[in-house]
Amino acid sequence: MIKPFQITGTYTDQYQLTMAQAYFLREQSDEKAVFDYFFRQLPYDGGYAIFAGLESILDILENFRFDENDIKFLIDWGFDKKFIEYLKNFSFKGSIYSSQEGDLVFPTRPILRVEGHIIEAQIIETVLLNMLNFQSLIATKASRMRLATGHGTLIDFGMRRAHAMAAHHASRAAVIGGFNATSNVKAGIDFNIPVSGTMAHAFIQSFDCEIDAFRHFAKIWPNNCIMLVDTYNTLKSGLPNTIKVAKEMQAKGQKLKGIRLDSGDLAYLSKKSRQVLDDAGFKDVKIFASNQLDEFVIKSLLDQNAPIDGFGVGTRLVTGQPDAALGGVYKLAYAYDKSRIKLSENEAKTTLPHKKQVYRLYDSNDNLLGADIITLNHEKDFKMMYHPFYNNKKMILKDCKSESLLQPVMIDGKRNIQARTVSEIAKFSKNRINQLPPEYKRFDNPHIYKIGLSEKLLHEKNNWIEKIKNNK
Amino acid sequence: MIKPFQITGTYTDQYQLTMAQAYFLREQSDEKAVFDYFFRQLPYDGGYAIFAGLESILDILENFRFDENDIKFLIDWGFDKKFIEYLKNFSFKGSIYSSQEGDLVFPTRPILRVEGHIIEAQIIETVLLNMLNFQSLIATKASRMRLATGHGTLIDFGMRRAHAMAAHHASRAAVIGGFNATSNVKAGIDFNIPVSGTMAHAFIQSFDCEIDAFRHFAKIWPNNCIMLVDTYNTLKSGLPNTIKVAKEMQAKGQKLKGIRLDSGDLAYLSKKSRQVLDDAGFKDVKIFASNQLDEFVIKSLLDQNAPIDGFGVGTRLVTGQPDAALGGVYKLAYAYDKSRIKLSENEAKTTLPHKKQVYRLYDSNDNLLGADIITLNHEKDFKMMYHPFYNNKKMILKDCKSESLLQPVMIDGKRNIQARTVSEIAKFSKNRINQLPPEYKRFDNPHIYKIGLSEKLLHEKNNWIEKIKNNK
Repeated sequence: MIKPFQITGTYTDQYQLTMAQAYFLREQSDEKAVFDYFFRQLPYDGGYAIFAGLESILDILENFRFDENDIKFLIDWGFDKKFIEYLKNFSFKGSIYSSQEGDLVFPTRPILRVEGHIIEAQIIETVLLNMLNFQSLIATKASRMRLATGHGTLIDFGMRRAHAMAAHHASRAAVIGGFNATSNVKAGIDFNIPVSGTMAHAFIQSFDCEIDAFRHFAKIWPNNCIMLVDTYNTLKSGLPNTIKVAKEMQAKGQKLKGIRLDSGDLAYLSKKSRQVLDDAGFKDVKIFASNQLDEFVIKSLLDQNAPIDGFGVGTRLVTGQPDAALGGVYKLAYAYDKSRIKLSENEAKTTLPHKKQVYRLYDSNDNLLGADIITLNHEKDFKMMYHPFYNNKKMILKDCKSESLLQPVMIDGKRNIQARTVSEIAKFSKNRINQLPPEYKRFDNPHIYKIGLSEKLLHEKNNWIEKIKNNK
Repeated sequence: MIKPFQITGTYTDQYQLTMAQAYFLREQSDEKAVFDYFFRQLPYDGGYAIFAGLESILDILENFRFDENDIKFLIDWGFDKKFIEYLKNFSFKGSIYSSQEGDLVFPTRPILRVEGHIIEAQIIETVLLNMLNFQSLIATKASRMRLATGHGTLIDFGMRRAHAMAAHHASRAAVIGGFNATSNVKAGIDFNIPVSGTMAHAFIQSFDCEIDAFRHFAKIWPNNCIMLVDTYNTLKSGLPNTIKVAKEMQAKGQKLKGIRLDSGDLAYLSKKSRQVLDDAGFKDVKIFASNQLDEFVIKSLLDQNAPIDGFGVGTRLVTGQPDAALGGVYKLAYAYDKSRIKLSENEAKTTLPHKKQVYRLYDSNDNLLGADIITLNHEKDFKMMYHPFYNNKKMILKDCKSESLLQPVMIDGKRNIQARTVSEIAKFSKNRINQLPPEYKRFDNPHIYKIGLSEKLLHEKNNWIEKIKNNK
């Protein structure tokens, strides 16, 4: 067997461990810290993002340990003996307050809050960002493709272009964002998501004639037969050969499932193919398309009324192109019994101090108001919402309902919620997306979902800024 | 411990397995096949790419097995009983002829050739592309940053923005491409590459004053102390506090290693910082910079004479932005005793049939001629090189030496070369890059390295095209 890849305590940036040792060797009475996970900019210039990766990170945190190999390396590197003993017995005993996996998330507002001893909260930063940034990026990309596709089938074909082992979580996140299936068998097994596929050019090339390849595949997989029609020429060879084999299958009481177009003008070829198939009496045979698809290509094809039933999407799904990264960050908000802040000349990069909660606002008919408000943790009544940077911009909140978004999902290192399956998360996500009015979901210049601060949080922030300026 | 991630036989696209079953249930005398791994376009509009991931894929192929979990899933999915027995006993017994890891590679020409039973050669396609595409992309990106940086230090800081577990191989590939170290401790341990790091804003924020944070870190890590100076204000706070602590360290016979700039105008701030440090007598204290760096930003900073000694590069390294994917493919060239081809309306996508070799050409003084020639496998004398698509373009080869690039690295499923360390591969890569004249290495409109076909290979290809056209 291949050496398995084991995430352990050293799956982190080196500075987390040198800082951890420095915290360890510091004498302070209350060593509790609070960190917020959030991002500053929506991916794809879109109107929303989908939060994904929570179940993965909860599984990881429940079992995050330093193994012998780790300890040996850290001793050799020169870490302190007492600190090494601490790491030998390390497990994460903090608490996590989080948005639900699959929920809509927006810039600036905490998506997840970590509370714990400052050492443990610091050490887990890297793995948390590493898992949540990627899966959220891919779920968001997948969700955009789902919006473009409507009810059609979407299959993740990206494994060969995924970033090595990232294929695993990419397939998971794709289904959370609205994909129906993946070609990635391993992810299918591990996350219980449907696996699917067609055939490759190599299979057809390996036969002397295309029709022999089709016949043989139909014989072996009569119930799961999708012919790839472009190895030599889609309209002159692939399609006529498919019709012949489909008729032979019909004569045996079998049914061809579909064809796959993988090159050429997919709008033109799908229309031609539909007509040829229909004329031959194969109205039920589906048309699948692949080849450098993304939400814009899919939208364009469907706008042209291309009769495509399903799309296989690879590179641009699993690599999250063109963004390729979600810039989520993890910032200290509270430590050693005090709220904490980081300033920046760029006002948007000044952090929000103190332990916080986030509420989603609804009108009296339970419709989204299009705003989340960030508050101090135990605040109840917030009558006014302030722009996070431009404090003169404010909004009166009247007669609105609120839903608190950060829920305790892990308490003292133990899960506080039942594990949810990928399909449960996908279903929840779909409901949340359906709540969001279309103007937030369009690709060009979407309506901006508002994020604001409560008055108390605004004061906490401004007081800090004053205090630091006066210290100079 | 966290459930380890095990690459097994199902780390593949589903269609590889349905096709494999179809091959399995087909009766043919000679079931040998040859596949080529290559790409069609250089990443980053650059003049070359670096091949990386070979050692990883050899390790994987030597141990590629289907485990119980895989078998159970495949039985449930409806795979044939006899084929399941075959998979239970599966191991890769084919042979691999490959370019050396770290070598320069160019479009169209085979980088690696797989020979084996058609089933095994088909099944491994996905994992091979998954590993080689990603590591080659990242090594190429890293190499560009190395070119921009010259002799300065380059550290991979990308783990938090890497695509989940892709962080592991990203750090490996970064060092192959010329990085000095990584912040990723796990990759450091597993690949024996140097790990490095500084400190984060959270550490500084957790103290009531910046200088207390600096003092404490210097106390704990006197030999490895790089101060992050921008938490509050680089010039007004971070730098003066650093100087104070550096003097205190000096008084104790200790030496501050450096400062890190992580925001603001890095050219301006590095010059100011250098001056302040020099004036205080700290000419040896290094300046490190980070914050959304890539080869262009680094080049611009150094063109402005920014006195930066080292760069920490994150997102744009480990995600391979802006490309985010290398479009490497794996195409059948030979099967069942015949050479094979795939046509395309796009001539550049028509594959090269038959078992092939690639030679790098040198002049009589051992200088690169700027051309690799693709030939049939056992060809010796090639007097002429033809453009792969435009057959009228040709070049006479006179008095040139040639180096065969595809060497047997795995024979009958067993490694045929000794495992090479990452640092050996990086060294080899550096030598190869040094051979390449600067005009191929510039970022804007680099000179095009020529790839051509031998006359015999050209005939093989054209005969095939004729034959298929006449069959219509």
